[in-house]
Amino acid sequence: MAIRKPTQQSVARTLSAEEYAEGILSGNRVRLSQAITLIESTIADHRRLAEEIIERCIPHAGRSIRLGITGIPGVGKSTFIEALGLYVIKQHQRQLAVLAVDPSSSRTHGSILGDKVRMSELARQDNAYIRPSPSAGSLGGVARKTRESILLCEAAGFDTIFVETVGVGQSETAVHSMVDCFLLLMIAGAGDELQGIKRGIMEMADIVAINKADGENQERARRAANEYSQALHLYPTPDSGWQPEVLTCSALNSTDIDSVWDRVLAHYEHMQARNLFSAHRREQARHWLRQSLQDDLWQDFLQHPEIATRYPELEQRVLRGEMNSFAAARQLLEAYTGKRPPAR
Amino acid sequence: MAIRKPTQQSVARTLSAEEYAEGILSGNRVRLSQAITLIESTIADHRRLAEEIIERCIPHAGRSIRLGITGIPGVGKSTFIEALGLYVIKQHQRQLAVLAVDPSSSRTHGSILGDKVRMSELARQDNAYIRPSPSAGSLGGVARKTRESILLCEAAGFDTIFVETVGVGQSETAVHSMVDCFLLLMIAGAGDELQGIKRGIMEMADIVAINKADGENQERARRAANEYSQALHLYPTPDSGWQPEVLTCSALNSTDIDSVWDRVLAHYEHMQARNLFSAHRREQARHWLRQSLQDDLWQDFLQHPEIATRYPELEQRVLRGEMNSFAAARQLLEAYTGKRPPAR
Repeated sequence: MAIRKPTQQSVARTLSAEEYAEGILSGNRVRLSQAITLIESTIADHRRLAEEIIERCIPHAGRSIRLGITGIPGVGKSTFIEALGLYVIKQHQRQLAVLAVDPSSSRTHGSILGDKVRMSELARQDNAYIRPSPSAGSLGGVARKTRESILLCEAAGFDTIFVETVGVGQSETAVHSMVDCFLLLMIAGAGDELQGIKRGIMEMADIVAINKADGENQERARRAANEYSQALHLYPTPDSGWQPEVLTCSALNSTDIDSVWDRVLAHYEHMQARNLFSAHRREQARHWLRQSLQDDLWQDFLQHPEIATRYPELEQRVLRGEMNSFAAARQLLEAYTGKRPPAR
Repeated sequence: MAIRKPTQQSVARTLSAEEYAEGILSGNRVRLSQAITLIESTIADHRRLAEEIIERCIPHAGRSIRLGITGIPGVGKSTFIEALGLYVIKQHQRQLAVLAVDPSSSRTHGSILGDKVRMSELARQDNAYIRPSPSAGSLGGVARKTRESILLCEAAGFDTIFVETVGVGQSETAVHSMVDCFLLLMIAGAGDELQGIKRGIMEMADIVAINKADGENQERARRAANEYSQALHLYPTPDSGWQPEVLTCSALNSTDIDSVWDRVLAHYEHMQARNLFSAHRREQARHWLRQSLQDDLWQDFLQHPEIATRYPELEQRVLRGEMNSFAAARQLLEAYTGKRPPAR
């Protein structure tokens, strides 16, 4: 099939939601890419078309394992994703989609956009589909688009979804709430301290993998794995009863990549055995509904003409200690709703 | 002065905001209690009066150290608060107010309400003021009322504020964002595992204290302190550069309570030296303004007649996998704002 490069204009005029959906459901990568482009578009008509496509695809979504992968720059994330991706494709005959959440993607040095080059062997696989992060916008917007893209990828037949984040900022929480399993990739540091990783991320991890366990670094990686494992055991077990473990691996040499995937499968089995897998996804759906509503409400509020001017003014007065923040909030809410807010 | 027991009715008819504020600023505990009762009231007129009082008191607030104290039931929190409170009052001539955030306060077994009995020696001190948590409501509401109460206590001359939480649920995050320093109280467990403490709380702590380091338990407490200290060192240092340490103490025997307060002061000095103390409080004020707005917007949204019926319906459809959560959000937002939401 001749692959026609999609442009926003040609996409808007060419097909109906029905046709995009049919293409996606039959595994047509071009249609999938076009539909994700519609999701990412800022044009209102494109967004509405995207929604109709998603509505049609949703009954066919969900049949996958969704793995979040995070780690700061320098831990070898691209190499790791490629090694793990090639492994699941070749050794487990899986269909893999690799997505990313990076709200700063237009500014990131060595951005995920360049990963198609850095994961070139993976990108060449028939059973792999790699999509860079939606470009910069609010984190809420980028996360939403990524989550919708997951649904389309699943409808297109991908049974394994990796969602990558860059390991700094707030993206990790968003990704954690759209995947089944969250993996933190690290390396052994000089003093075995997590320089740069945001606090709270380690506690989110279901699996911790210490990468670059090769050559002279093997011993150091093993020691780091022991220390972090002990640290993790001091922390409360998640409600699911799953105990996060720390593995070592070498993505460069493809060593112990199979062990990593074994852990992912073990986590999946653990959740399924306790009837937690679907329950977890339902809770995530409930969360995203609430999150979308709150995001949309907030945006509508901020864009209200009177709020746009008065919010910064009142915020300054609050910061200078001249005004109680709750009184300022009350004034602004009255301006937005046009009525006296209820006393709470 | 004869202490007249305040009732909501007498409070509303008796004094003006000016009179309450004057009373508070001159250190009148009765007026302070009455004003806090107004803050906690659900009657709209009381809330407005409370706001005026707060406006008058705000210029006189802020001159204190605010310490958050959390720990699960059983770690000896009341005994600890009493020991630390008596220490700062007697040895450091401080004026102490003890507040609490416990949204489930009407249902808590051995509730904080009973603490005035359990902290009876502290409650008897002239320089101590103990107030139970505002009664059950949303966490946002309880947190807001407690934060406003902090401001009034400071205006009344209290230079030391303890805010207690019960160590489970979401209260810790709220309290963390209204105090200068956050202390986690624990005891050495059988297997040295944090049973029951919510994940994420340890990373919030500026100080960790292992209580009940007395008698036969001393050795176990010291070992636990070492293990947790090592674990904490594996975690990234907060942006402030402050390294949380783990102490042991015995609130029952008042052993090493002075060391705990030394740490609180050291943290205060650390923040002041880096010009972070005021900056931190300003960020908290900015956060509370934003949080109030979002809370109020959300409540207004939920109470919209059409939303009240359609939200549960659409949520069920989303949970059953019949509908995309973002499409559901869009429909509900249209119903609330009466207009088509912008595409994002």
